[in-house]
Amino acid sequence: MTVAQLLSALASPDPTPGGGTAAAIAGAMGTSLLVMVSGLAKSRNNTDDEKAALLNARAALELIAATLSSLADADTASFDAVMAAYRLPKATDEDKAARTTAIQQALRGATVVPLDTLRACAAAIEHGRIVAEHGNRSAASDVGVAIGLLNAAADGAAANVQINLGGLKDEAFKTATATEMSRLTEAAAAHAAAAMRSAEP
Amino acid sequence: MTVAQLLSALASPDPTPGGGTAAAIAGAMGTSLLVMVSGLAKSRNNTDDEKAALLNARAALELIAATLSSLADADTASFDAVMAAYRLPKATDEDKAARTTAIQQALRGATVVPLDTLRACAAAIEHGRIVAEHGNRSAASDVGVAIGLLNAAADGAAANVQINLGGLKDEAFKTATATEMSRLTEAAAAHAAAAMRSAEP
Repeated sequence: MTVAQLLSALASPDPTPGGGTAAAIAGAMGTSLLVMVSGLAKSRNNTDDEKAALLNARAALELIAATLSSLADADTASFDAVMAAYRLPKATDEDKAARTTAIQQALRGATVVPLDTLRACAAAIEHGRIVAEHGNRSAASDVGVAIGLLNAAADGAAANVQINLGGLKDEAFKTATATEMSRLTEAAAAHAAAAMRSAEP
Repeated sequence: MTVAQLLSALASPDPTPGGGTAAAIAGAMGTSLLVMVSGLAKSRNNTDDEKAALLNARAALELIAATLSSLADADTASFDAVMAAYRLPKATDEDKAARTTAIQQALRGATVVPLDTLRACAAAIEHGRIVAEHGNRSAASDVGVAIGLLNAAADGAAANVQINLGGLKDEAFKTATATEMSRLTEAAAAHAAAAMRSAEP
């Protein structure tokens, strides 16, 4: 899909792709920028340990960028599944029971995907902190943009988790997911603030 | 350019595309999401004035999405121009003077482009406030993601304005640009906060 097609698809009144997909792509862009900065020739006198940490962050960020790119597609698929479940027949009691089960299953999928997006963004921000601390200073503004986009993507993903969680009935799953969501959101915000401080000009 | 190619290009060690382009595309995604929400069948009992305000916002947002998409390309071109100017010969005094002039001109271009991106994001957020207040409530999470991405894009654009401004010598231009940047950043933040309150579930 071209960038122009993506923008048209987001602007169209069709419900997918929506905010979850946009958040995942923004996260993938932020992660890719961090990969770029981690690969620049160093202008800093990093110690061997710092060089190793930067290489390690780079390898992790490359995987996360690919993950977020897949999650952008998965988000659309999971939301399409929710809408398909709502369209199932509800003529008989059997229909209704099957439909309810299908809706619950689809909503669970549509909760897990943005939670994965949030997890990936939080991990990218944590590695981004290393890039902000030890990466080439001349690309500090790229690091700032990257962390800002990842932070917005993490918040957007968390909002999508919360909305789909609202329709679920499995209380154990809801509690566990809400707890994980809070933990990841807080970790992402803390690492983002630290990275932003290091990236200041 | 496909989304996959964009992500690869951002991740490559080449300096362009960089944070300015990523910010403009994130802004275009946020604006496109607002266009989507403004086009949904209304589930609200909007007054005629509110319906007109929403239609007006939609028309403006469609233009802004196209503008931000162009600015993504313009950002890459303006940064390439800066690097080309730095590569000009500096053997003679004449060379040096021509090179200095070229660098100043290119840096000015690389300041104006992210300032335009910031201006477009601020305008999208202001129109997004109307969408958050009068758009379909079922898409509130899309509005939240959109405003979050636009806010991050505005901050990223402002950071790029500031960095390129640092290399400029024309004090009158620097002062005027810094003033305009502050005004736009503050307006964007204020409208974003109001829109986020309206988009809360």
